[in-house]
Amino acid sequence: MKRKAVVLFLGGEERTVFQPVLGRPLGAYALEAACGLAPDAVLVIAGPDGPGQEAWRTLIEGIGTSTPVFLLPAGKRTGGPRSDLLAALVTARAVLEKYPDCDVIALQADKPLLTGRTLKALLRTHRAKGLSLTFLSGGEGTGLAGVLALRSADVFPLLRSIPAARAKAAFEALALRLTKAGKKIGFTECADGDEVLPVGDGVAAGRAARELRRRKNEALARRGVVFLDPSSAWIDWASRIGPRTVVYPSVVIEGRTRIGADGRIFPHVHIMDSTIGARVKVLTSTVMEDTVIEDGAQVGPFSRLRPKTRVCAGAKVGNFVEMKNTVFGPGSKAQHLSYLGDSTVEDGVNVGAGTITCNYDGTVKSRTHIGAGAFIGSGTELVAPVKIGAGAYVAAGSTITKDVDAGALAIARARQFAKPGWALKRARARKAEGGGGKP
Amino acid sequence: MKRKAVVLFLGGEERTVFQPVLGRPLGAYALEAACGLAPDAVLVIAGPDGPGQEAWRTLIEGIGTSTPVFLLPAGKRTGGPRSDLLAALVTARAVLEKYPDCDVIALQADKPLLTGRTLKALLRTHRAKGLSLTFLSGGEGTGLAGVLALRSADVFPLLRSIPAARAKAAFEALALRLTKAGKKIGFTECADGDEVLPVGDGVAAGRAARELRRRKNEALARRGVVFLDPSSAWIDWASRIGPRTVVYPSVVIEGRTRIGADGRIFPHVHIMDSTIGARVKVLTSTVMEDTVIEDGAQVGPFSRLRPKTRVCAGAKVGNFVEMKNTVFGPGSKAQHLSYLGDSTVEDGVNVGAGTITCNYDGTVKSRTHIGAGAFIGSGTELVAPVKIGAGAYVAAGSTITKDVDAGALAIARARQFAKPGWALKRARARKAEGGGGKP
Amino acid sequence: MKRKAVVLFLGGEERTVFQPVLGRPLGAYALEAACGLAPDAVLVIAGPDGPGQEAWRTLIEGIGTSTPVFLLPAGKRTGGPRSDLLAALVTARAVLEKYPDCDVIALQADKPLLTGRTLKALLRTHRAKGLSLTFLSGGEGTGLAGVLALRSADVFPLLRSIPAARAKAAFEALALRLTKAGKKIGFTECADGDEVLPVGDGVAAGRAARELRRRKNEALARRGVVFLDPSSAWIDWASRIGPRTVVYPSVVIEGRTRIGADGRIFPHVHIMDSTIGARVKVLTSTVMEDTVIEDGAQVGPFSRLRPKTRVCAGAKVGNFVEMKNTVFGPGSKAQHLSYLGDSTVEDGVNVGAGTITCNYDGTVKSRTHIGAGAFIGSGTELVAPVKIGAGAYVAAGSTITKDVDAGALAIARARQFAKPGWALKRARARKAEGGGGKP
Repeated sequence: MKRKAVVLFLGGEERTVFQPVLGRPLGAYALEAACGLAPDAVLVIAGPDGPGQEAWRTLIEGIGTSTPVFLLPAGKRTGGPRSDLLAALVTARAVLEKYPDCDVIALQADKPLLTGRTLKALLRTHRAKGLSLTFLSGGEGTGLAGVLALRSADVFPLLRSIPAARAKAAFEALALRLTKAGKKIGFTECADGDEVLPVGDGVAAGRAARELRRRKNEALARRGVVFLDPSSAWIDWASRIGPRTVVYPSVVIEGRTRIGADGRIFPHVHIMDSTIGARVKVLTSTVMEDTVIEDGAQVGPFSRLRPKTRVCAGAKVGNFVEMKNTVFGPGSKAQHLSYLGDSTVEDGVNVGAGTITCNYDGTVKSRTHIGAGAFIGSGTELVAPVKIGAGAYVAAGSTITKDVDAGALAIARARQFAKPGWALKRARARKAEGGGGKP
Repeated sequence: MKRKAVVLFLGGEERTVFQPVLGRPLGAYALEAACGLAPDAVLVIAGPDGPGQEAWRTLIEGIGTSTPVFLLPAGKRTGGPRSDLLAALVTARAVLEKYPDCDVIALQADKPLLTGRTLKALLRTHRAKGLSLTFLSGGEGTGLAGVLALRSADVFPLLRSIPAARAKAAFEALALRLTKAGKKIGFTECADGDEVLPVGDGVAAGRAARELRRRKNEALARRGVVFLDPSSAWIDWASRIGPRTVVYPSVVIEGRTRIGADGRIFPHVHIMDSTIGARVKVLTSTVMEDTVIEDGAQVGPFSRLRPKTRVCAGAKVGNFVEMKNTVFGPGSKAQHLSYLGDSTVEDGVNVGAGTITCNYDGTVKSRTHIGAGAFIGSGTELVAPVKIGAGAYVAAGSTITKDVDAGALAIARARQFAKPGWALKRARARKAEGGGGKP
Repeated sequence: MKRKAVVLFLGGEERTVFQPVLGRPLGAYALEAACGLAPDAVLVIAGPDGPGQEAWRTLIEGIGTSTPVFLLPAGKRTGGPRSDLLAALVTARAVLEKYPDCDVIALQADKPLLTGRTLKALLRTHRAKGLSLTFLSGGEGTGLAGVLALRSADVFPLLRSIPAARAKAAFEALALRLTKAGKKIGFTECADGDEVLPVGDGVAAGRAARELRRRKNEALARRGVVFLDPSSAWIDWASRIGPRTVVYPSVVIEGRTRIGADGRIFPHVHIMDSTIGARVKVLTSTVMEDTVIEDGAQVGPFSRLRPKTRVCAGAKVGNFVEMKNTVFGPGSKAQHLSYLGDSTVEDGVNVGAGTITCNYDGTVKSRTHIGAGAFIGSGTELVAPVKIGAGAYVAAGSTITKDVDAGALAIARARQFAKPGWALKRARARKAEGGGGKP
């Protein structure tokens, strides 16, 4: 039977660990790699103070792992990652006693590029060679990573013998004593030394984000997403995209966005926390947040879809159109320069250019309802609360303040009249006086 | 006299070859490099099935070469590029008999980074050294590229002697027989091993696109285009830009777009299949498709120009303005929040903010005509079909349903009246009742 | 006492030197590095002709250094950087006589990546080792950089002995004579050979811009700016951003822009020469130029702020809203589809969707004034010059041509009436005739 395996996860500085990278805390990456080992337990040593406990709980839940993860408050920082590790082992010992003679893999939250593959190789080497202490190295010239595996039965009895004053060189001291005791220590190298680079500042975080982004986009490309320019697409770790969907350059997709298959996401689009069906076209420079777009719909360019909007199957939303808290029915169209807020639009409606739902009167917000098949002429204000019946026709340029019956024409505009020659005379007069004046 | 040269172009998998990269099929790149050799013929061995023949014809036409290119249906795939090559030679032999004792250069469509320079070096070495079979190598550690040159008079007689069972090692077998027969075989290396990397999946296609994009942008820079950030400009292979035109970051230019000299293309612009004159400014976040913009015009930011639009010399189109199927005359201006569809605007017209052509009544589309020097006041709907005469003046806030004579003033709006103190009383009442209610 | 140090700055070709990179002339980078040495004087040898003198003066002022910088017109170009250098020394000799026995550091304006650190190392080595002539090398395989330090007391007496015919090899000849005279010459290497690459064309300028951009963004990140994607953010050299402000991908910031702390700049934003306070959110695809945004305000997405606009503290400007030459008061809101030009909006005003200030009547521009706490209903035109009093209420769909008193309701729209069944009958009729017709 294999020995139990326990991961000791050193939380490090909260400022670093909770810094968002591709939409989730930087610390989540190494923790996910740790959980990928399927260990018997992960012990997270949280920072010694701050709002950390709650934030850590959220971070751990975000991973969605079935591995048991325990959160332990750290003792005082004693300086440097390796002395931290010693302190963490002391902190964790009470818990670790439940796992006598187990393998402890220790790693740090500030190493987001560490892969599950590297951790597995570390544990495999550690076990296969019967080692008591196995260091991970970043490769030639980089030194030790602070990541290691140890066999608790061999190492724990020696811990008390390391004097506090030698904390910084604790593992060198341990290695010495293990050697004296006839135990074996060893090393393993990771394929890419960048994996173990700690992220200590914004510059390093930027570089890590770049590598994680590369991994994310390559993973999506392998599942069939077509990137025109993988280097300029920014897609959060939690977002998903279906096969054959084409992603143009400079697209930004954030949060728990879901995009279906066979779609097209044009350049300069920004999507946040939205759910998009199959065969959807999102044209250039469209922005949406907390929006649902059903199969076969088309939005953009320059659409702005605010939270609680649903664009139903086959509908079209066009340029300079804003929607908020609105259901926009199947096959309906709003193609130009409109604002639909707090409204329900049934199916097959044509919303003309320059249509505005006046949903706010300075104090309260009210709803607009447009029935199936209605035609809203251009340049129309719909003063909510108001209902436009099914199949009704609102004439262009009207301000609608009363409900319109199904099948009716509603009109609210002034009659056109002309002053022949007025403009010509005015132009002459202005020319004579050298400009100036007002009609 | 030089021996004839014939290129044998192996089509490979259609899914890969017709994948668009910088706006043209991936297979077009290697084919163009092949045509750059100016060979006596190029034989394209298309895939064994699928809609390939027609698609291949389009691809070949897209190259626009004067080299004779022949399309041959492939036999069955026998597995692997080198056995494919053997099959292709067998397929092509009937045609190749027209070229006795010629040099055959064989290459694969899935190698878009292969340059004409490398192919020329291959042919030059092959001829200069009197070789019968010359392999191209990608350099140390990469092995053979599947690209080679062979002298038909030496190689063809041996082809039949290669047993089908040895197809995968056909060229090793050929090399052996040629050596036995006292012929010379040789190798040549390409300067950059990446040139011969086959593109087999989306990840590789993404990398190839990146390198092709670098080449495209450097070629444009060498001809005088000024890129603020060449790494973020995406320009299709077929697009052209004139000298001294400045391209800002994150610009996407697609299709057969032509842009003149001395222009400025601001950030986040997306241009598709458009023709742009000299000294044109395209301001930030503008989108256009199938549009003509004449010399000295300015569009954007946030303009959206749809197909069949012509912005004439010196005209200005501004923010949140959409045009479709519209001629917008010389020196005319539409600077804010407007929609001009199916319209003709003559020269020197001022289109005020919020002008909308109501070109669709739910059933038919109609045209709007605006004469030279007319002034369209803001917030105006022009209900098509309608004509505004030259020099006419439409008052702000009008809905125009009847033609307006030249030089006339047209007005269609209600008289303003006031209820003094109304808003103040309402505000007090609402405060008293704690909000709520509607005027 | 240290010997005096004088920098000889070779201006080179004006086309190259005045090419803008990150918003300032390429030549300014090397000049700034030279001034960083705190020498006793910098002698700039300007090009022999062209509009250079004035442009050079602007460039020098742009550096803002306290080092005395003198501008000398160059003699004729004699070909090649090293013969130029000889000519420059001859040109500068009259001035340099003021500094007998000084160290002259010579460098070229077309090397924008040269760092102050490298120049300091060059001077330090030159002095510490008692050298008469010290060449800077770009490292193995790159040869000499054209950058050097020389001791005038040793070198100047020999200058006349270099025949004009040997100008191209002048420094080799000098080195030979110095050696014969028992003087020491030496070499020093720069850490990164790219530093001394001259920028001779657009391709090289693009590469230099990339490296300078990396340096700029890393410097900002070190001061606490949070870049989601440092590789896609374009920030001019002269722009500044406060700590903890988050910069999303594909942001372009130009000119002397100042952005405060704790802000958020969303994707695809383009900011030119603007001043932005603390805690400001600039949402996606916003464009602004010569604009002031005060603390805690929010603009975008799709806002377009033109010159002379001030968005006051806590105000909100939303999608498809344009402002020009406008003060927009504290806490006021204009969230949708509006144009405010030449206007003053006091505090706490609500500007409804589709509000347009008609500031231009074809000849003159006039101002709009909106008093504190006013409510402008949607779809309203305000025909300037016009004043809306404090707390007034303008009904939706009105065209306002006369001043509105404080606390009053203003309304200017037609009464709504209906034709029951009209739309239904029309739809049936059209169906019967197979479409066509117009209401």
